[in-house]
Amino acid sequence: MRPSAPLPPVTRFSAETNELLAKVEQALADRLDRQVDAPPRLLDACRYAVLGGGKRLRPLLCLRSAEAVGGRIEDALPAAAAVEFVHAFSLVHDDLPALDDDDLRRGRPTLHRAFDEAMAVLAGDFLSMLAVETVGELRQEPERATRELVRATNSMIFGQVYDTLGGTDPSLPPADQLRAIHDRKTGAMIAVSCRLGGLSAAADPEAMRSLDRYGAVIGQMFQAVDDLLDETQTTEHLGKAAGKDREAGKLTYPRVHGIDGTRRIVAGMLEESLDALRPFGIAAEPLRALADDLARRTR
Amino acid sequence: MRPSAPLPPVTRFSAETNELLAKVEQALADRLDRQVDAPPRLLDACRYAVLGGGKRLRPLLCLRSAEAVGGRIEDALPAAAAVEFVHAFSLVHDDLPALDDDDLRRGRPTLHRAFDEAMAVLAGDFLSMLAVETVGELRQEPERATRELVRATNSMIFGQVYDTLGGTDPSLPPADQLRAIHDRKTGAMIAVSCRLGGLSAAADPEAMRSLDRYGAVIGQMFQAVDDLLDETQTTEHLGKAAGKDREAGKLTYPRVHGIDGTRRIVAGMLEESLDALRPFGIAAEPLRALADDLARRTR
Repeated sequence: MRPSAPLPPVTRFSAETNELLAKVEQALADRLDRQVDAPPRLLDACRYAVLGGGKRLRPLLCLRSAEAVGGRIEDALPAAAAVEFVHAFSLVHDDLPALDDDDLRRGRPTLHRAFDEAMAVLAGDFLSMLAVETVGELRQEPERATRELVRATNSMIFGQVYDTLGGTDPSLPPADQLRAIHDRKTGAMIAVSCRLGGLSAAADPEAMRSLDRYGAVIGQMFQAVDDLLDETQTTEHLGKAAGKDREAGKLTYPRVHGIDGTRRIVAGMLEESLDALRPFGIAAEPLRALADDLARRTR
Repeated sequence: MRPSAPLPPVTRFSAETNELLAKVEQALADRLDRQVDAPPRLLDACRYAVLGGGKRLRPLLCLRSAEAVGGRIEDALPAAAAVEFVHAFSLVHDDLPALDDDDLRRGRPTLHRAFDEAMAVLAGDFLSMLAVETVGELRQEPERATRELVRATNSMIFGQVYDTLGGTDPSLPPADQLRAIHDRKTGAMIAVSCRLGGLSAAADPEAMRSLDRYGAVIGQMFQAVDDLLDETQTTEHLGKAAGKDREAGKLTYPRVHGIDGTRRIVAGMLEESLDALRPFGIAAEPLRALADDLARRTR
């Protein structure tokens, strides 16, 4: 196989992963249901944003990381829900007309199209706070987990700011600016998803370092594949507008490294992520499969 | 004096209050300066939103509440900064075209006019997270304080949602809907400002109950006076657009109770707030003066 050929795609999850996804779905729905003091229309908007599908990558990384260090899924669920609430909040605000101006998300109208802009601003605000509240419900280290989640959320916001401004520091080479934006915009939340899984299981410092290494490279890989799909797939297939990044003149992996170059980079990142998991042995098998899926995903 | 006549205005703070305000200003500026990893333009936007004047009511309530229960100003400063960050975040998002569409705030262009809408969305998002981070820096009860701040912030968002929707439950009388909106939109954050001051000083439950009672009525009074000023003052005097609430057909105290009725209500609220402070004796003198100022304020 030439290094630049796309990896063959995976199309479905195992029955066990589907069960895990059902638990995540339930945890998200339950946490929203518990917010009985919220205006019903706001909750409707949040359910639309949160429960409308999505890959649940961050919750899966969180739960699988907890498993890898010997923790229990149930103990990690508040963290898994929290990282997904942050993700949903970021999508809702990033889709706004003043930011990315997207009409389509997961094959459906974006929140500000389905409801209105005011509700999109307010639902995003609420979801970010709900994330903080939810991560504080962890049994292990809620204070440290809250601090880490908030820092990662801020990194994500900083990344979005740089993305909006078209770069970090114009004196840096494009490849460095690209990495700086993505480390913040996507990487920080993906890395903290793994870390919170570890924290929920009271992982030791060495295990946390392995999760950090895995999370960091997975974050980069996720963005590289995302950029590749934006270049090579159709809008219909992705369920969101394709080619937008290129049209907007944004810094992307294919723009900086070419399509073949990006494919080679992804293959290298997959290797690196598997290497990071070596200390965990068999317990990290699901994290390995997840890395593999991410490298091969087609939407 | 007829009960419907406006109370005579107060025009200036004592030297001691000005010193306290300088400490608040310094705490806000320092906290933003410490965020060295943030994009410079985002920090500029936040400084514009946070350091551009404002009454600093919430920080003052927080610090004066700490004093009333025997605490130290320095210990309460992170909470004082946090409540002001939440306040700034809410103003920035509420001013957006999709919400209140305000061009003027404190006599200057609103953030989305001075910068742009994207930066206003993102600066508001960041300020809400910065508030959570900052309140977590309290020496006493950071976890409880974080939980209470997040809940109050959510109440505030719920109030804004109801305000946007034009009411809570149309089957309720307007006066009840008015109170339900204001308790959330303004009341919750004013009440928690007092509570966080108490928490920072490890106040006992009885003292916390007195602060709660004071905070609840002060929140209502603040909003009643605000509504009154919107009806009776000019845009130039207020530094923000006057008469907007009436034009928007929003529920306000004067609309529900009339101007004279609202003045009588304010006088009654002032009495109630002073009664709540009785257990604190001389230590609550600044909180009494603050209540008095709020009842008489003209902008």
